[in-house]
Amino acid sequence: MDHNCAMTPDQLVRTFIKHIEAKDLDSACALLTPDCEYDNVPMSKVFGPDAVKELLSPFTAACSEIDWVVVRQAASGDMTWGVVLNERVDRFKMGERWVELPLAGVFEVRDGKIALWRDYFDLTTFQKAMAG
Amino acid sequence: MDHNCAMTPDQLVRTFIKHIEAKDLDSACALLTPDCEYDNVPMSKVFGPDAVKELLSPFTAACSEIDWVVVRQAASGDMTWGVVLNERVDRFKMGERWVELPLAGVFEVRDGKIALWRDYFDLTTFQKAMAG
Repeated sequence: MDHNCAMTPDQLVRTFIKHIEAKDLDSACALLTPDCEYDNVPMSKVFGPDAVKELLSPFTAACSEIDWVVVRQAASGDMTWGVVLNERVDRFKMGERWVELPLAGVFEVRDGKIALWRDYFDLTTFQKAMAG
Repeated sequence: MDHNCAMTPDQLVRTFIKHIEAKDLDSACALLTPDCEYDNVPMSKVFGPDAVKELLSPFTAACSEIDWVVVRQAASGDMTWGVVLNERVDRFKMGERWVELPLAGVFEVRDGKIALWRDYFDLTTFQKAMAG
């Protein structure tokens, strides 16, 4: 019996984000289905928890702090099949400065885990924010 | 008593989109609060139904057909104060060709009308799609 079963899809996504903020990618990726899709819409997509971890690792390693602010979030369905959509400001502290990216996220929950994580944002905004 | 009161926030946003698809901007903008914010995140924002109509008019006029596919949508709250988030593919037929833009929308509902409409998308993707 998976401990995720006690959560709602809304709570599952919030827990996932908390793990990323704590740079605990093992705990975060344990919440993903084996075939999960992680789609950074204007960039690229990867599949599977290992690929997600590989993509995020250099990024979390480069940040001294991670703070993803969930501005709005709404969900439908249940842990068997649910949808969670949110509006966020993903904040990363790199050196002494905070980089901020406003975006909207789409999550699909299947059998207690996250099967899809898709973020919509403007790539140029992100690149400019990273460049400082 | 406004007829919108019979709707849910989810239905209000779907009705708003239907009016835009029908190029009926008067009916669409009648669903907006007087101080509504329309924010195309990587571009600009405008305030008020008149400004929204002014921004959309040349666009709808340039399209022979408009088809906004709501891929996923979730809502919370009620018509007094609610939030609707969706994932869409906004499709515009220009001449003989369909232009498609994948995006995520954020709507805030207040007192039976839409007080915020914010779309997250990649501007370069949109510009390339428009250029063909």
